[in-house]
Amino acid sequence: MSSTTDGGSGGDALDVGFIGLGIMGRHMAGHLQRAGHRLHVYNRSRGGAEALLAAGATWHDTPAALAAACRVVITIVGFPADVEALYLGSGAIVASAAAGTVLVDMTTSSPALALRIAEAAAARGVHALDAPVSGGDVGARDAALSIMVGGTQAAFDLAAPLLSRMGRSVLRQGGPGSGQHTKLANQIVIASTMVGVCEGLAYARRAGLDPQAVLGSISGGAAGGFLLSNMGPRMLCGDFAAGFFTEHFVKDLGIAVAESTRMGLDLPGLTLASRLYDELAAAGHARDGTQALFRRYAD
Amino acid sequence: MSSTTDGGSGGDALDVGFIGLGIMGRHMAGHLQRAGHRLHVYNRSRGGAEALLAAGATWHDTPAALAAACRVVITIVGFPADVEALYLGSGAIVASAAAGTVLVDMTTSSPALALRIAEAAAARGVHALDAPVSGGDVGARDAALSIMVGGTQAAFDLAAPLLSRMGRSVLRQGGPGSGQHTKLANQIVIASTMVGVCEGLAYARRAGLDPQAVLGSISGGAAGGFLLSNMGPRMLCGDFAAGFFTEHFVKDLGIAVAESTRMGLDLPGLTLASRLYDELAAAGHARDGTQALFRRYAD
Repeated sequence: MSSTTDGGSGGDALDVGFIGLGIMGRHMAGHLQRAGHRLHVYNRSRGGAEALLAAGATWHDTPAALAAACRVVITIVGFPADVEALYLGSGAIVASAAAGTVLVDMTTSSPALALRIAEAAAARGVHALDAPVSGGDVGARDAALSIMVGGTQAAFDLAAPLLSRMGRSVLRQGGPGSGQHTKLANQIVIASTMVGVCEGLAYARRAGLDPQAVLGSISGGAAGGFLLSNMGPRMLCGDFAAGFFTEHFVKDLGIAVAESTRMGLDLPGLTLASRLYDELAAAGHARDGTQALFRRYAD
Repeated sequence: MSSTTDGGSGGDALDVGFIGLGIMGRHMAGHLQRAGHRLHVYNRSRGGAEALLAAGATWHDTPAALAAACRVVITIVGFPADVEALYLGSGAIVASAAAGTVLVDMTTSSPALALRIAEAAAARGVHALDAPVSGGDVGARDAALSIMVGGTQAAFDLAAPLLSRMGRSVLRQGGPGSGQHTKLANQIVIASTMVGVCEGLAYARRAGLDPQAVLGSISGGAAGGFLLSNMGPRMLCGDFAAGFFTEHFVKDLGIAVAESTRMGLDLPGLTLASRLYDELAAAGHARDGTQALFRRYAD
C-alpha cells in the first residue's frame, strides 16, 4: 500500500538529481520535487536553480558530487559534446555514481553516444537510459511530454515512475540508443513538415490570398497537424520567438543526417531541410524558433 | 418560411446538374439528390450514374444538354484539359448555359484556367466559381469536405447552400482562381509533409525500431498530424491502395510548380516532392495512393 504522506510520490521518496535547468529542465525538475522526491540540482549557472532551491532542493557544486548523492540522475543539456563531458569525462557522473544508480539522459543526442554511455555504465553496475522528449516548453510545464526511452527493461522499470511525472506518453522503444533514434525519426518528420507549412503559406501569400483565411480552409483537412495549427499563425504574424531554438534543431538534423548516411539511407527531404536550417542559422537566426524558417520565403 | 415538403433542400428545389461521377462525385451528387434537388447527370461512362438514376436523376447525353436544363451545374473531373474541354470547347457548358446559371468547377485545376472560365462565363451573364475540395473519398461520402471557393460574392451566395450539403467548411477565399490557389497551398503543405512522414518512418525501420511503436511515441507531439496518423499505418503495412491517386497528385504538384515559378517564388521542398512523385508515377505506381511514396524508401 502506498502512503499519501510522501507528498505524492506514489511510493518511496527518492534522492533524485537533475542536471540542466534550462527552460524545459526547471519545469521537469519541479514536477519531481512536487511529487515528494528529494531533489538535488546542478546547473552551469545557479540562477536557473533558484526557485527549486527555495522549495527545498539541494545544490551541488559538481555533477560528480550530485551523482554520488542520488539514486536516479536526470540530465537535459544542450549538445552531444555536453552530454559526453557530463557522462564520460574526468569527474563525470558515470564514474561517480554508485552501483545501481539509474542515469537518464533526456537531451536529444547521438544514438552512438547513448550506446557508449550505456556500456560504460553497465561496466560499473550503473543503469543508463536515453530518454529524449517531444513537446517543448509547454509540454515540460504541463507534464505532457512524449518521452522516448532506450535502454534495458530493468532500467526502464526503475525510471518509469519518475518519467511518468514529467510526460503523458512514456514508451520504451528498445535497447540503448533507441530513444535517440525515435526522437530523430520525430525530428525527420518535423523537418519536412515545417518546409511544407512554410511553403504552403508563402504560396498563399504570394498568390494574393489572405493566409489566415487559407489556414481556416486547410487546417482541418489532410494538410492539418500540430505545426500548421501552431506554427502557421506565428509565421504569418512574424512571431519568431523561440519555443525551440533553431540552433538545437540544426544539431538534431545534423545527427539525423549523419545517422541516416551511416545506415546507407537516402533521405532527400531531410537533406534539403537540414541545408535550409543551416542557412537560417548562418544568416544570424540561430536563436530564433524553428518557425523562423518562414523568413526564407518572406516577400 | 422554408417548406419541409421539398425533401430537405431547406428552400426551393433546384435543377442541379452534376458532371463527373467518380469515387467522389457520385457521393457528392447523392447528397444534393437527398436534399431534394432535381438532379441531372452526365458522365463519360454511364455506369457511375446508375445509383443516382435509380433514385430519380435525369440522364443527359451531352454536357451541353445538361447545362441548358439546369440552374446550377457542378463539375468534378480529372485534369485541367478535361475542365477546359468541358467549359470552353465547342458545345461546352459555358456556351450552353442560360444567363444566370451558376457553374461550379470542383476539380483541382489551374488558377489561370479558372480565371479564363470566369471571364468567358461573365461575358454571357453566367456565374462561374472554382471550388476544389479537400477530404478525399471519405470526406465526400460523409459530406465533410473542406471546399475552397474562388469567385464573386454574388455567385458564392447563390452556390453556398448547395456546397454546404457536401462540405463541413465552405469558405470563399477571393475572386476567380482563389479557390484553386488555396487548394494548391494545401497540396504544397501535403507534399513535403508526406516526404517527412515517409522519411521518419523509413529511418525508424532502418534503425531497427518497431515503427508502430515509434508512431505511438511521435503521433501525439509536434510531428503529429492527419498524414502521420492516417497514412503512416498504411505505409507500414504496405497498403498502397488509392484514396487519392498518385497521378492526380502529380498533376496538382505540376500546376503548383508552374504557378510558383510564374510568381517568382522559389519552393525547394515542393520542387523536391514533385520530382519524387514524378518518379513514383514513372515507376508504374500512378494508380497507387499518394502514401505509396513510401515505396521509394523500402528496404
